[in-house]
Amino acid sequence: MNPSDPALRSFIAVDPSSDFPIQNLPYGVFFTPERPQLRVGVAIGDQILDLAALESAGLIRCDEGHGTFAQPSLNAFMALGPQVWRRTRARISALLRHDNPELRDNAALRRQALVPQRLAQMHLPIAVQGFTDFYSSKEHAFNVGVMFRGKDNALTPNWLSIPIGYNGRASTVVVSGTPIRRPRGQLRPPTADAPTFGPCQRLDFELEMGVVVGQASAMGDMLTAEQAEDMIFGFTLLNDWSARDIQQWEYVPLGPFQAKAFGTSISPWIVTREALEPFRVHGPPQEPPPLPYLRQARPNNYDLHLAVDLKTEQIAQAAGISRTNFRYMYWSSVQQLVHHASSGCAMNVGDLLGSGTVSGPDKGQRGSLLELSWNGTEPLELEGGVRRTFLEDGDSLILRGWCQGDGYRIGFGACEGTILPAG
Amino acid sequence: MNPSDPALRSFIAVDPSSDFPIQNLPYGVFFTPERPQLRVGVAIGDQILDLAALESAGLIRCDEGHGTFAQPSLNAFMALGPQVWRRTRARISALLRHDNPELRDNAALRRQALVPQRLAQMHLPIAVQGFTDFYSSKEHAFNVGVMFRGKDNALTPNWLSIPIGYNGRASTVVVSGTPIRRPRGQLRPPTADAPTFGPCQRLDFELEMGVVVGQASAMGDMLTAEQAEDMIFGFTLLNDWSARDIQQWEYVPLGPFQAKAFGTSISPWIVTREALEPFRVHGPPQEPPPLPYLRQARPNNYDLHLAVDLKTEQIAQAAGISRTNFRYMYWSSVQQLVHHASSGCAMNVGDLLGSGTVSGPDKGQRGSLLELSWNGTEPLELEGGVRRTFLEDGDSLILRGWCQGDGYRIGFGACEGTILPAG
Repeated sequence: MNPSDPALRSFIAVDPSSDFPIQNLPYGVFFTPERPQLRVGVAIGDQILDLAALESAGLIRCDEGHGTFAQPSLNAFMALGPQVWRRTRARISALLRHDNPELRDNAALRRQALVPQRLAQMHLPIAVQGFTDFYSSKEHAFNVGVMFRGKDNALTPNWLSIPIGYNGRASTVVVSGTPIRRPRGQLRPPTADAPTFGPCQRLDFELEMGVVVGQASAMGDMLTAEQAEDMIFGFTLLNDWSARDIQQWEYVPLGPFQAKAFGTSISPWIVTREALEPFRVHGPPQEPPPLPYLRQARPNNYDLHLAVDLKTEQIAQAAGISRTNFRYMYWSSVQQLVHHASSGCAMNVGDLLGSGTVSGPDKGQRGSLLELSWNGTEPLELEGGVRRTFLEDGDSLILRGWCQGDGYRIGFGACEGTILPAG
Repeated sequence: MNPSDPALRSFIAVDPSSDFPIQNLPYGVFFTPERPQLRVGVAIGDQILDLAALESAGLIRCDEGHGTFAQPSLNAFMALGPQVWRRTRARISALLRHDNPELRDNAALRRQALVPQRLAQMHLPIAVQGFTDFYSSKEHAFNVGVMFRGKDNALTPNWLSIPIGYNGRASTVVVSGTPIRRPRGQLRPPTADAPTFGPCQRLDFELEMGVVVGQASAMGDMLTAEQAEDMIFGFTLLNDWSARDIQQWEYVPLGPFQAKAFGTSISPWIVTREALEPFRVHGPPQEPPPLPYLRQARPNNYDLHLAVDLKTEQIAQAAGISRTNFRYMYWSSVQQLVHHASSGCAMNVGDLLGSGTVSGPDKGQRGSLLELSWNGTEPLELEGGVRRTFLEDGDSLILRGWCQGDGYRIGFGACEGTILPAG
């Protein structure tokens, strides 16, 4: 049976509002206080299925003679390739089915291999090799362009031809829950003559999806759309924390550097490309048509709902500040990856590609405070008179994402981070 | 005795024109046909001293119980920190001295531990974690700015305040001798309405030095100039191959991406900071004075000669096309590293920082063909009527660098690469 079949049921009870039904099976890396070794698991309902335990018990096997899941990252598993990814997903799905006794009726193994999520600590799921950040929402690029360069130069002339991207900093990609320290940097407000060095005054988030590259390509090689798609292991939520004041002063001519280097948060769960397959949709029309190397034979966008909540120390409940959808992206992840390798740039197992901020056509669908507060000129009104233009110390930002099936959802869990004061 | 003392002599004969006298002792990673394991060695004259062999023999020891030098990269050694770097350099210097019998009089060990360079194959010396490229020669930034943005906007307003840099692509950093395939990419000549996709027509080199970061810093931490200097393990030659036509079309607003992603070559030998110490000099005056976090208590430039040779299939001898000096850099490597970490960006063992193209004040001191041929308008005249504006297939580019002592030189060996036709 297709592991994405909506009719599948697990012997583990899963609430219909859970991000993690049997149709999802996202991968993460975790440990527990009583067993601090990092290992790979799969989320199911409010549990984690410990794949290292199943591997030890001989119920699952990927690579003869090697521990694929008793690992501090998913990289070893990803390196085995898409056939192993498919086979493993099918096997995990079978093991969790309500009508399969192998795990269901083995009480000792269940005790060992099923860990309540509330008792586990999640770890960064991949050893990030390269981190690349794209800029592929037309609405976001236009909004930012208007604020940074004026309406006439908002969309640069290359934007409709190139999935614009830049290399980010891999060393500060962290898992959801890691606090983010407000960065210091060079700031030069438009009214000042000279820059000063101090804490960022315009600290922002960017709502993005992350693509996890699970296969390598060789230096000098280009990729077809089909090859690129096969290399994509899965997707995460991604918050590309941004210091807007540092960015505006530093980014001409070589792009963002310290404005984006202090932290990037991803969700602990990587949802596989296969699990998202039923939610594949066409993206917006691309006009002018992309150059031949960027053409794709089938739709590569996803109908994936995205939500941003903001919690401050002054309000009782997190406030929803943006609701949008990944389907709005102009350039697809496949096109981004094809372009990334187009010069002969080698891709590695564990590369992470940020989609770029996901903004939709409506005001409430914008994926950054820069856009939501229109560069600080239109503060967001939260409860009890609390207002925000940019993030303040102690604020927490929570991203969520899910595809809505009939009676179930394929979700990512939360991607959250809290701002610490500058050191 | 100070390992940099000009009076030191080795029992291994070293020609005065050699890059590798006993005062240098640069580190590299190599293998030999009869022993294909990658291992760390030090260049001395025309030999390589095999540190893994000395470690096995008990003549050198860095880390109790671990093989520091039987490794595919220098990262394990670098991680041990500056005290170990100093102690190891002193020990290797002592072992190679003309008056020390330990290795000199042990014929069996000498046979095992001394490998002629011509019989060895050099490997990438570090496992590159992040690759960052700076833009710190004022002459280069001005020249490029004039060509890309016109004379009035040549030096962007931030240039004298920030050591401008951007994240590069680590996956395609290769060792000298690796061929470079001409990249394909989107090109839109100024006269065209729309971009096309095809082989780069303006393939260039950039003469740079690379700084190898040998110690990590934590996410959220800033560095003082002293801390940053202590983290620098050494220097390499670096060629930041550049596709000028791809670059010009793609780089606004987020900086160079595919134009620089297809290959970056470094010399096989990493010259330690300690070996360069006697050649430390002041850089150009910095006016306006840098912000306090970028101030340095002592001179951090080096009097390091740089030379670029070009060999084409049509000419018999490589032609010297540029002669310059690393001392001209406006921002020092220490200032670059301080700035890199200033937002709280974590630095890793194995990070590589390109200095930016080294151009001097004179025409013959320019470090790229873009500048040497003034954007293709002033072809270089080589012998027999051969001319070059940008690189053609089959061309080889050779970088060299050395500090000139009294009767000896501290050199890097060559950093070369040959252009293959687009695939």
